[in-house]
Amino acid sequence: MNKEYNTVRTTSSSEASDDQPFLPINPFAEPITTMSSANTNHHGRDDDMIDIDFQNTTNDRSTNSVMNVDLVNTHYDDFQTIDWLKDLMRDRFRHRLLRTKSHQSFFNKLLMYHDAWSGWLCVLLVGLSAGVIAAVIDIGTNWISHLKHGICLNAFWLNREQCCWASRQLQYDNVNSEECPEWFTWPQVFGTYKKGAGEFLLSYIMYIFWSTIFATFAVLLVKVFAPYACGSGIPEIKTILGGFIIRGYLGKWTLLIKSIGMMCATSAGLILGKEGPFVHIACCCGNIFSYLFPKYGRNEAKKREILSAAAAAGVSVAFGAPIGGVLFSLEEVSYYFPYKTLWRSFFCAMVGALVVRSINPYGNGHDIQFSIDYSVPWASFELLPFILLGILGGLWGAFFIKTNIWWCRFRKNSRLGQYTIFEVVCLALITAIIIYPNPYTRMSMSELIKRLVSQCRVEDMIDLCDYPNAQFYNGKSKGSIGLAGPGVHHAIWKLFFALIVQVVLVTFTIGVKVPSGLIIPSMSIGAITGRIIGIITEQLAIQNPTFILFRHDCSKEENCVTPALYAIVGACAFLGGVSKMTVSLVVIMFELTGGLNYIVPLMAAAMTAKWIGDGFVRGGIYDAHIELNGYPFLDNKEEFNFTTIAADVMRPRPEQSSSLAYLTQNGMTFLEVENLLKETTHTLYPVVVTREQPYLVGQIQRRDLQIALKSQKMQRFRLSQSLIQFTSSSETTINSDYEVDNQNEQRLTTNPEVIRIGNLLDQAPIIVTDQTPMETVVDLFRKLGLRQAFVTRNGRLRGIITKKDILRHVQQLTSSNTETTYYDN
Amino acid sequence: MNKEYNTVRTTSSSEASDDQPFLPINPFAEPITTMSSANTNHHGRDDDMIDIDFQNTTNDRSTNSVMNVDLVNTHYDDFQTIDWLKDLMRDRFRHRLLRTKSHQSFFNKLLMYHDAWSGWLCVLLVGLSAGVIAAVIDIGTNWISHLKHGICLNAFWLNREQCCWASRQLQYDNVNSEECPEWFTWPQVFGTYKKGAGEFLLSYIMYIFWSTIFATFAVLLVKVFAPYACGSGIPEIKTILGGFIIRGYLGKWTLLIKSIGMMCATSAGLILGKEGPFVHIACCCGNIFSYLFPKYGRNEAKKREILSAAAAAGVSVAFGAPIGGVLFSLEEVSYYFPYKTLWRSFFCAMVGALVVRSINPYGNGHDIQFSIDYSVPWASFELLPFILLGILGGLWGAFFIKTNIWWCRFRKNSRLGQYTIFEVVCLALITAIIIYPNPYTRMSMSELIKRLVSQCRVEDMIDLCDYPNAQFYNGKSKGSIGLAGPGVHHAIWKLFFALIVQVVLVTFTIGVKVPSGLIIPSMSIGAITGRIIGIITEQLAIQNPTFILFRHDCSKEENCVTPALYAIVGACAFLGGVSKMTVSLVVIMFELTGGLNYIVPLMAAAMTAKWIGDGFVRGGIYDAHIELNGYPFLDNKEEFNFTTIAADVMRPRPEQSSSLAYLTQNGMTFLEVENLLKETTHTLYPVVVTREQPYLVGQIQRRDLQIALKSQKMQRFRLSQSLIQFTSSSETTINSDYEVDNQNEQRLTTNPEVIRIGNLLDQAPIIVTDQTPMETVVDLFRKLGLRQAFVTRNGRLRGIITKKDILRHVQQLTSSNTETTYYDN
Repeated sequence: MNKEYNTVRTTSSSEASDDQPFLPINPFAEPITTMSSANTNHHGRDDDMIDIDFQNTTNDRSTNSVMNVDLVNTHYDDFQTIDWLKDLMRDRFRHRLLRTKSHQSFFNKLLMYHDAWSGWLCVLLVGLSAGVIAAVIDIGTNWISHLKHGICLNAFWLNREQCCWASRQLQYDNVNSEECPEWFTWPQVFGTYKKGAGEFLLSYIMYIFWSTIFATFAVLLVKVFAPYACGSGIPEIKTILGGFIIRGYLGKWTLLIKSIGMMCATSAGLILGKEGPFVHIACCCGNIFSYLFPKYGRNEAKKREILSAAAAAGVSVAFGAPIGGVLFSLEEVSYYFPYKTLWRSFFCAMVGALVVRSINPYGNGHDIQFSIDYSVPWASFELLPFILLGILGGLWGAFFIKTNIWWCRFRKNSRLGQYTIFEVVCLALITAIIIYPNPYTRMSMSELIKRLVSQCRVEDMIDLCDYPNAQFYNGKSKGSIGLAGPGVHHAIWKLFFALIVQVVLVTFTIGVKVPSGLIIPSMSIGAITGRIIGIITEQLAIQNPTFILFRHDCSKEENCVTPALYAIVGACAFLGGVSKMTVSLVVIMFELTGGLNYIVPLMAAAMTAKWIGDGFVRGGIYDAHIELNGYPFLDNKEEFNFTTIAADVMRPRPEQSSSLAYLTQNGMTFLEVENLLKETTHTLYPVVVTREQPYLVGQIQRRDLQIALKSQKMQRFRLSQSLIQFTSSSETTINSDYEVDNQNEQRLTTNPEVIRIGNLLDQAPIIVTDQTPMETVVDLFRKLGLRQAFVTRNGRLRGIITKKDILRHVQQLTSSNTETTYYDN
Repeated sequence: MNKEYNTVRTTSSSEASDDQPFLPINPFAEPITTMSSANTNHHGRDDDMIDIDFQNTTNDRSTNSVMNVDLVNTHYDDFQTIDWLKDLMRDRFRHRLLRTKSHQSFFNKLLMYHDAWSGWLCVLLVGLSAGVIAAVIDIGTNWISHLKHGICLNAFWLNREQCCWASRQLQYDNVNSEECPEWFTWPQVFGTYKKGAGEFLLSYIMYIFWSTIFATFAVLLVKVFAPYACGSGIPEIKTILGGFIIRGYLGKWTLLIKSIGMMCATSAGLILGKEGPFVHIACCCGNIFSYLFPKYGRNEAKKREILSAAAAAGVSVAFGAPIGGVLFSLEEVSYYFPYKTLWRSFFCAMVGALVVRSINPYGNGHDIQFSIDYSVPWASFELLPFILLGILGGLWGAFFIKTNIWWCRFRKNSRLGQYTIFEVVCLALITAIIIYPNPYTRMSMSELIKRLVSQCRVEDMIDLCDYPNAQFYNGKSKGSIGLAGPGVHHAIWKLFFALIVQVVLVTFTIGVKVPSGLIIPSMSIGAITGRIIGIITEQLAIQNPTFILFRHDCSKEENCVTPALYAIVGACAFLGGVSKMTVSLVVIMFELTGGLNYIVPLMAAAMTAKWIGDGFVRGGIYDAHIELNGYPFLDNKEEFNFTTIAADVMRPRPEQSSSLAYLTQNGMTFLEVENLLKETTHTLYPVVVTREQPYLVGQIQRRDLQIALKSQKMQRFRLSQSLIQFTSSSETTINSDYEVDNQNEQRLTTNPEVIRIGNLLDQAPIIVTDQTPMETVVDLFRKLGLRQAFVTRNGRLRGIITKKDILRHVQQLTSSNTETTYYDN
C-alpha cells in the first residue's frame, strides 16, 4: 500500500522538471506491434515485487482453482490502459475470500465489516476533505484578491470585509459600500491620500504589479513542483476514469500545488475560473484517501468508483450543487458508473456541499452562490430571446473550441511552448492593464455574474440600475420598470467592452500552465450577453407596448421583462455551448440559482446551444482537449458508425509480414519461450494448441511467464530443452470427454523434463470472431472495459485487438474530418 | 407497422378473459432443452410474414455484405427475451442505409431529418399525452371522490369546489371551510336536513355504498377488458425494459382501462395510490406513440429508449418532480440507459410536468404537491429521531414486503385466486366501514399527507393544532410553540388508529386486481408515524428544556422541533423502506416538498431505511413481485457473487445424455437438416466445421433456415440428398490464407447438387470459453443484452448459454436462501 503511494509521489516529483508532461510521453509513439508494449525499464523494481506477487498468487489459487487469473497483481505501468474486467473479478475474488475467512474468527468478521463500510468511509473522507479544501481556497482567493487593492494594516491576514468587520460593525456582505478606517488601499499606504489621477494611477500600477506577481508565483509553482497541476484537469480525469493510468496526476503534490496555484491564478485577475479545477482537486483527495483502503487503492477499477464520487463532490463544492454534481459525474466524466456509485456519489457530494456551507466561504448566509431573489413569471414571447441566447451560446462554444484548440496546438508546435513562464507573465500583465479601467472587468467574475443575475433594487446606485422612472415595490422592482436612464446606456457599453475583453483573453488563457477552469469565464460571458439582450428586449417592450409580440403579456403599469433572468439564461447557454453538457448543466444552474420557475428557459437555451454547437464541432471543449493531447479515451457517448469488421482492425494485418507472437500449449522448449520473451515486449501472449492447429487455449501475462522462468532457472540446470507445458494435472480430468488432442500431452507427462505452468494460464480470454462487426467489438470494449480481445475464425486464432488498436482505427476512419492524425505519429 | 400494432390490441383483448395473466404462461415451464424454444403454434401467421422478411433481408444484404444478420426481422414471440445487440446493430444499419440514400434525393434527405428528429418528437408526444392523461385522472378522481359525499345538483359534473366556486366566490382552495348552497350532501338530497345521528348514518351508508360501487366497477373493468391493467405495473415494466416481450401489456386498452380503473379504485377509498400506476400509463403512451415512428416501433431495443423516457415522465407527472423522475427511471426501472436517453428523458419529464402544471389539477396555484411553507432550521439532536424514523421505515418495508408477498402467494395458490371480484368488493366494503368514522382516514391520503407535512397556522382549527399557549408570528408559528392541548392528544390517538388501519389494509390491498400503487400509502403511513414522533419529541423538548440533548438548541421562547418536518422525513423513510430507492427518492422528496434545507434529514432517513430494510429483505417490493411472478429479469444491480464457470451452466449438461443440436458447415444433406428442424424447436442453431472437428463457424436462425428450405423445395425436386453448404463464394477468398479445411469445400463446389445458404449464416456469434467465470458471462449478458452465447474449449463448440439458463442458474444458487424455487416448476 505504502509502496504504491510512494511511487505516486516520487513519480510526480521526478517528472516535475518536465515542461509539457504529455508531449514527450506519447502513448502512441510505441512501434506498431501486436500488443501494447510494457515498459521494460523498471525491471529492478518489478522484480522486487514479483516474488511477493507470485507467492500471493499461488496462495490464493490454492483456495480457488477456478480463478487462475493473476488476482493480486494490480500494478499497471504508467500510461497503460487498465483491464476493468480482470480488476473487478479480482475484487470479487478478494471479497469472497474475506467472506469465507470471516467465519473463522471474530477479527476476520470485523475485517469484513470494515471492508463493507470502507467505501462509505472513503467517500465521507473525500467529501469532507474536498469541502474543507474548497472553503480554504475560497477564503484564500478572497484574501489574495483584496491584497491587490490594499491591506489591513492591523492584521494583514484579514481581507477587506473581515478587516472592516473587525474594526466596526460594517454591513457584512456589502464590500464596496463605505470606507472603513482599518483598511488601507495602496495609495493610502504610500501616503497619497488625496483623490485624483495620481491615486488612480498608483492603484492601477499596484494592481498590475500584484497581478503579475501572483501569476508568476502560480506558474513557477506549477512548473517546478507539479506540472500536472495546470489546466482544469477535467480532460485528464475523463481519460483516467475511462481506464488509463497517469501516475502522479492525482497525487498529493498535484493537490497542494493546484490548490495554491489556483488561488494565485484566480487572484491575478486572469480570465479563468476555479470551479473546473475543483473537480481535479476532489479527485486528488479521492485518490489519496483510496490508499487508506487497499480495496480501492490497490484495484484500479474499484478506485475509479471513488474517483467518480469525488468528481461529483468537486462540482458540488464548487457550486453548492450536489445533485448537479452527481449528474455531472454521471454524464460528463465517469465511464464506469454502477448503481452503488450513484448513491455514494450523492452522499459524497452532499457531505462536500455541507462542509462548504458550514464553513461558509461566500460569507453571505445564503447557501446558493448566485441566488436569485425574484420569481416573476416569464412570458411566452421571451422564449424567442432565450433561444437567441442559446444560438449565441452555441456559436460561442464552437468559436471558442476552434480558436482555443488552434492556439493550444500553435503553442504546442511552435517555440512559444518553451516559454511558458514568459507567456503567463505577459498574459497577466496584459490582462491586468486591460481589465482594471473597466469596473465590470475589475471586479471578480463571480461577483460580476452575481450582480448581473440580480434584479435592481431601491438601494442599488450602480449605473446598471439607472431607471429614473422606476417604481419599486417592497424594496424590489417588479421587473425594472420604465425607460432606461443614461447610466444604463453607459453600462451597456462597458459591459460590451467587458464582453470583448473576456472573449479574447479567455481564448488565450485557457491552456496556459496555471490551474484554470473555463466554467466561470463562460458563464460570465454568457451573463453579460444575456443582460445586454435582456435590457434591449426590456426597452423594446417598453417602447412598443402594442407590438404584436408584447401586447398580450406586457401591460403599461408592469414591466414583463426581467433582464437579470436573461443573464442566468445566457450563462447557462454559453456554458452549454462550450461544455456541451445538458441535464447536468440545467440541474447545476437550477441548484446554483435556486430558481425552480425558470427551468424551461434554461432547458430551451441549453438545448439550442448544444444543437447549434454540435453543428460546428462535435463534443465539448474537454473532448477537444482529449483529442488534442492524444489521450487514449474511448468515448462511450459517440456511436461507432462504420461497417468495418474485426478482421479489418486486428493485428497482425494480413498485408503486413509480421506474424502473431504466440505460445503453444505443449510443444515449446524453455529456450524458445525465453527467446520469444526477449524478442517481443507484449504484456500478454496467447496460447494455442499447436503451431499447425492454432486453436486458442488461453492467455498468459508476460510478467507471470517471466517469474515462472526465473524461478525454474534457480531450481534446475540444463533447462533449455525442457518442454514448457500449459496444462495442469487438474485440467486433464476436465478435458477428458471432449478433447482429442491430448495424445501429445500424455506423451509429455511421462517425460521428466516437463515444466508445468498451467496454473498461470488464464483460460478465459475474450474471443470475437473475425467477422464480428466493429460496432459489437467496440461495444464489448466500452461496456466491459476490456484491454484486449482475441480474434478467431472457426476457432483458429487469427489476431488480437487492443483498446489502442480500436482508438487508432476510429482515428483513421474519422481522419478525413479532422486535421491532425495525432495518433499515428 | 399496423400489423404489429393490431397484434398488440388483439392479443390484449383475446386474453381479457384470462384471470391471472401470468400464472398459466410461465416462461420457465418449457421443457429443459438446450435453447429457449420458440412458440411453434403460430405457424400460419409466421409463414405469412416470412416471405416479406426474406425478401427484405436479401435486399438489404445486397447493399452490405458484411451485415449478414437478419436485419429486418423484428418479430419476437410473446414472452421471449430480446437480443439487444442484434436489435441495436439493426438500427445502426438502418441509419446507415438512410444516410447513404439521403444523398440521392431531397425526399430522402427529408426522411433522414425526420429520422433524426423522431426521437425528440416521440418523447414530446409522450410527455404531452402523459401530462394530459394525468391531469384528467386527477380531475376525474377528485370528482368521483366528492361524489361519495354529495352532488352538485345544478351541474352534476362539477366537484364540490367547482360547484361552490360556480355558485358564489368561495375561497377556492379550502374544501371543508363552509357550506355552499349548490352542493348537496346525500342526506340533504334525501331530505334529511337536520343534523344528528340520522344524518351521520345516512352519510355513512352512502359512503359505503358508493365505495363498493366504484371498487366493483374498477375490478369488473380490469377483469373484462384488460387484465394487465391491475397493480402498479412497475415490476412488469422493469421486466419489459430488461428485454422481455409481453404483448399487450403496454397497449391502448390497458391504458384506457387502467386510467378509468385507477380513478374508481382511488375514489373507492381503498388504501392504494395512483402515483405508481402513472408510470405504467406513461409507458403505455410511450409504446403507442413509438408505433408512429418505425425506428422505435419496429425495434424492441430502441423502443425501450422511449419507454425509459416515458417512465421518467410517469413519475414526473405523478409528483411534479422531473429530475426525480429521470433519476427514478435511471435507478429503478431502466436497464439500458444510454447517454442520449438521459437528456430525452429529462425533456419528456419536463414536458409532462409542465402540462400537468398548466392544466393545474391540484387547483391551488402551487406547483408542488406537498409544498412546505417553513424553513426553520433543524437542530443536530433531531438527527436521532430522524434515524429512528429511518429504522422504523426499514422495519416497515421488511414487514410489508414479507407479509404482502406471503398474502399474494397465498392468493395465487389458494382458491381465493378464483374470486378476485368478490375479494375486491369485500375489501372495499370493509375499508369503507373502517375508515369513515376516523376523520384522518376519511380524507384522501394525499390530503392527509398534505395536512401532516404542513405547520400549524393561526387559522387552523383542527385538533392537531390545539396549542393553547402558541404564539404565532406572521401568521405562522415558528415551530408549534408550547404545551399541547387536549386536541393534540386526541389527534395522536386518531392518527395512531389511522396508522394501524392503513398498515393492515394496505397489506391486503396491494396485489388485488385493480390498478394500485403503494407510493402514497407508504408515504401516508410514514407521515403519520413521523408526525406522532415529531409531536412526542416536541413535547419532550418543551417539558425538559434543560436535558442535555435539548439544552444547546432549544431556548424557552422558541421551540426547536417542527413536527411537520418529521412527517416529511417519515414519508421519505417509509417509502424508502418499501421501494429501496435512494437517490431518486431523496430527489423526489426534495422536489415534492420544495425543501432545499432538509436534504440531510431526508438522506439520513432514506439511508437508514435502506440499510435496515436490506438486513431483512434484499431488494424492494418491485423486485419481490418480479420474483413472485417468476419474470425473467436479470437484475443489473445485484452482484453475481459465485465461483461457477461457464462449463457449469452451459447446455447440454455433461451429466445428461442429451447432445447439442448443431449443423455442420458443408456435410449435411437437405433431409438431415429438415429432420433436425422437425426434432428440435430451438430458435438458433450453431454451425460447426465438421462433426469430428466441431469448431464454431457461426449461427443461423431457425426462421431463416426454414425459409431457405421452403424456397428450395419450391424450386427443385429430389432434394433430400442435396448438400446444404454454409459457405458463400465470397468467403473463399477470405478463407484462403489461413484455412486448411477447405478441401472438403472444393470437392463440393464441383457438385451441382449443392445448396449454398452461406449468406444466411451469422458469422459473428458471441463466444466464451468454458473456463470463463460466470461473473464475466453474466456481465456480458447484462451489459450487451445478449440472448445467448456459445461456449467453446480450444475453439471447439461445447455448449450454449442462454439468458434463461443464467436466470435458472442464479435461482439455483440462491435457492437455499429463498423459500420457493419458482423457476423450476
